[in-house]
Amino acid sequence: MSEDKTYSAYFDNAATTFPKPQIVYDFMNEFYRTNGGNAGRGNSTQSLSSGYLIQDTREKIQELFHAPSRQVVFTSGATMSLNIIIQGLIKGGVRNIYISPFEHNAVTRTLHEFEKEKKISVFELNLDRNLNYDSEKIRYAFENKKPDLVIISHASNVFGLISPVEKIFALAKKYGAVTLTDMAQTAGLVDLNLEQEIFDFAVFAGHKTLYGPTGIGGFLMKKNLSLENVFFGGTGFESAKQEMPSSLPEKFEAGTLNILGIAGLNASVKWILKTGIKNIYAKEIENREKLLKIFSNYEFVKIAGNKSENHYTGIVSVLLDGIPSDTADQIFSKQGISVRSGLQCAPSAHKTLGTFPAGTIRFSPGYFTIEEDFEKLENCFNYIEENL
Amino acid sequence: MSEDKTYSAYFDNAATTFPKPQIVYDFMNEFYRTNGGNAGRGNSTQSLSSGYLIQDTREKIQELFHAPSRQVVFTSGATMSLNIIIQGLIKGGVRNIYISPFEHNAVTRTLHEFEKEKKISVFELNLDRNLNYDSEKIRYAFENKKPDLVIISHASNVFGLISPVEKIFALAKKYGAVTLTDMAQTAGLVDLNLEQEIFDFAVFAGHKTLYGPTGIGGFLMKKNLSLENVFFGGTGFESAKQEMPSSLPEKFEAGTLNILGIAGLNASVKWILKTGIKNIYAKEIENREKLLKIFSNYEFVKIAGNKSENHYTGIVSVLLDGIPSDTADQIFSKQGISVRSGLQCAPSAHKTLGTFPAGTIRFSPGYFTIEEDFEKLENCFNYIEENL
Repeated sequence: MSEDKTYSAYFDNAATTFPKPQIVYDFMNEFYRTNGGNAGRGNSTQSLSSGYLIQDTREKIQELFHAPSRQVVFTSGATMSLNIIIQGLIKGGVRNIYISPFEHNAVTRTLHEFEKEKKISVFELNLDRNLNYDSEKIRYAFENKKPDLVIISHASNVFGLISPVEKIFALAKKYGAVTLTDMAQTAGLVDLNLEQEIFDFAVFAGHKTLYGPTGIGGFLMKKNLSLENVFFGGTGFESAKQEMPSSLPEKFEAGTLNILGIAGLNASVKWILKTGIKNIYAKEIENREKLLKIFSNYEFVKIAGNKSENHYTGIVSVLLDGIPSDTADQIFSKQGISVRSGLQCAPSAHKTLGTFPAGTIRFSPGYFTIEEDFEKLENCFNYIEENL
Repeated sequence: MSEDKTYSAYFDNAATTFPKPQIVYDFMNEFYRTNGGNAGRGNSTQSLSSGYLIQDTREKIQELFHAPSRQVVFTSGATMSLNIIIQGLIKGGVRNIYISPFEHNAVTRTLHEFEKEKKISVFELNLDRNLNYDSEKIRYAFENKKPDLVIISHASNVFGLISPVEKIFALAKKYGAVTLTDMAQTAGLVDLNLEQEIFDFAVFAGHKTLYGPTGIGGFLMKKNLSLENVFFGGTGFESAKQEMPSSLPEKFEAGTLNILGIAGLNASVKWILKTGIKNIYAKEIENREKLLKIFSNYEFVKIAGNKSENHYTGIVSVLLDGIPSDTADQIFSKQGISVRSGLQCAPSAHKTLGTFPAGTIRFSPGYFTIEEDFEKLENCFNYIEENL
């Protein structure tokens, strides 16, 4: 933690973006030193300031997703959000669940628990050989086994492929399914209008593409949806009742919220709105192109799942001839490059790509990746070419 | 958020301690600006720094609770910890649950959900008229209905009464019960040796008596205990398996941890260890005495549940003649005093005290409460005496 420590070129933004915009650090630091009260837990000056901050952050998130009618619920992160929604829906009677072939363990492990108890059936949405959804096959599957719930991660955390959620959800809605999109890798990066009727639930993580801190996340939901509760506690509200309040967001926000995290998220979402989501995405694509250009210079690099006709975030996953994918991050770490190798908590995506079980080496640039980082990366690949 | 804003005298430390020690703000700010990587999600420099921080914090918490053999699990807070433990134990077959008459809604609402499904039976531990546990009656109850689980909050969040958990758990252990103590109001304040065999689970909140930030908490558990999982997701570990890892703490730490929160907790626990838990408790008792001395000057003040032979934290709950308890915080807020009125998320404690459903007005000083705060409080009570 000394000042002159030399850091790696950071290509692990899909795990958590780093650094955050300076305003995020500054605002968190300033806000928490002076306004550290517990929101919804009294009428004190400190407590009201926190309450105002939380309400303002909900509104900024509605603005970011173009979704003024949706309820913003805060949780400790995307994983907790997915558990609340998926477990709550299953408790409410959801049985046939379709998922994309790219889901994270936060989705698949949660489903697995109920699948092994034979409470639900889980099906994968069909793809064609170009990794596009096969609408005909999906329609056929829906006819045979009516979908109660369709879950699609908006972009794969393994190789950045952006799914056409609007198209598949429009089809799912014809069969009356509830829809859930996991935007852990796209919130604040890939513009999506969540006010559209086809969207029921959308999950976000604060610390990835939203450029806020860890420990804060949440979801947006239609206010009239029925969702059973699976997580209970105090709400500073209707405390005499032993049922959770039925009002939103209190129903799903038991316990004390992460106020410092919300302060960081408040600053980061404002930064995104000011910077412009389209500009941030343009920078992301520019970074992706720089990665692809570097990789194209080396014969030993094979890019996983890159198809020119598809849309991607900045994430690029590769295989290196002669280097095992599951331990490659240690080689890169020694060369001052931060990457993530292995399965990236998404084994089903790797099964789809044919890269299971060793996985891939994932490079994920961010808005603050600089030219020097790419130069370091190129030097590292030159070193690998000469030495390994 | 301007520098010259005048803040209330803060007597709401039981909701969240404020301010935190300066080192907590300083360390969080410094650490996150330079070490914001995602622990357990790669081998990068930033990621390793976070991993080291997390491990160091687990060890400091073991030290604080004198419990080197216990597993420290991090969660988003006390509420989530209680849900993980209580729901996990019920899933594993726990049926007869005894609780103290002072439990928070984080415990009672969670139990209520399973009680109404008739999965469990919940009983209150018997008290005598002095609010002491009635060992004879409890033993009789245990003989009649064997306890599978006994839950006692170490201190009441309503009026600060410290429960003799060691005595009741020793009795519970004779009947083979699993024990759980909620230390949300005592961790870092009231010394307790959790290495004792009678303790199975102990829950802590980061942002209360531990003087850390919100959004971080956790629990300590015996490593050989069986606890079913109720919350699923990625662990950056054994990612190919769709079962959660069986190893601790990964089994219960799905998703990305609140690294900034852990940084704050690291600094705050070190501050407690350096300051000395006995010195912090001595200051707390001194503050309680100051409150009681002020209140004794006014005939319209009635103190709830204060018995000279019992042990307390600094929390004092009162009733004011002619002022409704559930809205009194607004009167105090206008006079520049932060308090919490109503049920404080613990209706059963108020039923025990006879202060249900309006509740009480709760005053909770902290280590950083200063003489000027008590002077403001005295002025406020003088104003109430003359004007209301």
